[in-house]
Amino acid sequence: MKPFYIGAIDIGGTKIAATIANQNGLLTRIIQPTLKTGPLSTVGEQAIALLQSACAQAGIDYSTLHTLGVSACGPFKKIDDMVGLATPNICGSTNNLPNDWTVIPLEKILRDQFSTVIIENDCVAALMAERTFGAVIHETDCVYVTWSTGIGFGLCVDGHILRGKNNNAGHAGHMLMDNQSKAICGCGNIGDVEALISGQLLCQNAASFPTFCEQNPDARLMAQWFGRALYNIVVTLDSRRFVIGGSVWVNNHQWLMPLVEQEIKAHLPVLTDDISIVSASLGKLVADIGALTLVMPPEWIPHWQLSKPWKNLLTQ
Amino acid sequence: MKPFYIGAIDIGGTKIAATIANQNGLLTRIIQPTLKTGPLSTVGEQAIALLQSACAQAGIDYSTLHTLGVSACGPFKKIDDMVGLATPNICGSTNNLPNDWTVIPLEKILRDQFSTVIIENDCVAALMAERTFGAVIHETDCVYVTWSTGIGFGLCVDGHILRGKNNNAGHAGHMLMDNQSKAICGCGNIGDVEALISGQLLCQNAASFPTFCEQNPDARLMAQWFGRALYNIVVTLDSRRFVIGGSVWVNNHQWLMPLVEQEIKAHLPVLTDDISIVSASLGKLVADIGALTLVMPPEWIPHWQLSKPWKNLLTQ
Repeated sequence: MKPFYIGAIDIGGTKIAATIANQNGLLTRIIQPTLKTGPLSTVGEQAIALLQSACAQAGIDYSTLHTLGVSACGPFKKIDDMVGLATPNICGSTNNLPNDWTVIPLEKILRDQFSTVIIENDCVAALMAERTFGAVIHETDCVYVTWSTGIGFGLCVDGHILRGKNNNAGHAGHMLMDNQSKAICGCGNIGDVEALISGQLLCQNAASFPTFCEQNPDARLMAQWFGRALYNIVVTLDSRRFVIGGSVWVNNHQWLMPLVEQEIKAHLPVLTDDISIVSASLGKLVADIGALTLVMPPEWIPHWQLSKPWKNLLTQ
Repeated sequence: MKPFYIGAIDIGGTKIAATIANQNGLLTRIIQPTLKTGPLSTVGEQAIALLQSACAQAGIDYSTLHTLGVSACGPFKKIDDMVGLATPNICGSTNNLPNDWTVIPLEKILRDQFSTVIIENDCVAALMAERTFGAVIHETDCVYVTWSTGIGFGLCVDGHILRGKNNNAGHAGHMLMDNQSKAICGCGNIGDVEALISGQLLCQNAASFPTFCEQNPDARLMAQWFGRALYNIVVTLDSRRFVIGGSVWVNNHQWLMPLVEQEIKAHLPVLTDDISIVSASLGKLVADIGALTLVMPPEWIPHWQLSKPWKNLLTQ
């Protein structure tokens, strides 16, 4: 049997990662800052170049790579029924980034190179990774949440991963929560979840958040807003379990966890009293492993579940 | 072939309706105020007595009725893996109703009488009715909303009706929206959607809402809150179409419709610019027809879709 490889691309607002894997695990992973200047095809071409480099690094002939899973930050917008990225922190048409892109034709560019291309929102990919290899294996009613530069959700109800009309389900970081707030989100909303508590906000206001810690009342207030957002998800979807990742959570989960759980359970006990919260177990690789999961042959999964071939990369 | 009948019960906070149907349409429908005194079995027994009366009225032997669909206001709570009602405006354990019920063992009581019993939240049943016979036939990403005594949702994403861990998906009327508000919901929440705009509120404050109309600024503000709640659903589920019912909507939809649509589309155009809103087409019968739909033989459906056998009842 010829060796079989799969590729993954994770496209974020700040970096793109390319990963190559075979049945035994991850062979290589390369990261670059996301390019934001040049023609509309720039990001797609960067992804392809990165996959070519990753193949070279792994000693694989790029022409034998036919299968690609992609996790990308949204929102998505369809062009000729193919996924494009309308991501505010990559596309510059409505902000001050150095390009005039409105929608990046990602799927079209990748389909010219690969026979199988599956693209999902990064939080949906992360949810699939955690449901396949992580903290919520086989859980039917669970939600992946990232608290990082932005706030995003991957939603699973009754065992179905939710996608919606344009694969944009889970953009609940743009839920309106505080109509008294003056905080403005990158999307233009005032007082949505991201405007109130995004990691970007924490960086911009480093002067007022010198330490994002339990002793800081503003930080505790942000934990409460985050808990309220999760409560709003529970009353909408009747979820059982949250699995949470992202840099803000990872660096603060010990003191955040009880505050967030308390805020969720402070309301409508009949829906909230049996919910639980866990931290994501796949760390910084969750979106990459998620992208691989999208195209992984089912027969690889039991072996990966046992051997956890991402372990060494996680501790690097 | 022996004649085949199906029964339906719709349990609301103020009334219970029993309906009997055969392949040609609705045979009879009886309504009573919901009983709220007596032993814990009261509501279940009232439903059975009502079905017996409905059979008698239709000239059917009750003992030949084996199949029952139920739509009921929630939240639900499982007792021995069977659906019970923990509905705040029926159960008196946490309020001033004349009973000490906490959870009504509805499914258990009904299963003693019927070989097939399917129970759904009333907004889920209404959604199924509108997707089968009403305004959103075959729509994969749609939401039924009732704006009535309470605010409730039935959710469909990617063609899947959402239920959640205890069949309580869609209780987004208890989403927290306004942290400055002093308005208290029946559930105890301050500033959730129901606290801000429920029909109950409109009745209680009839002095301050002498006319719920377009000229009343408070009424326009409530329309805006309702639109914001629907926007929050769109960013969570990437919905395409809302179908709206309930007394507040039905009596005011002409001026509410443009205000609500405008509020939804005022945010995150990439998700909201293609959403549409329609009024429910099954009116006051939507939950009853929904309950029938839960147990209806599939071969009846095309005939009902053509003949619309509820039409005469709707205009009564």
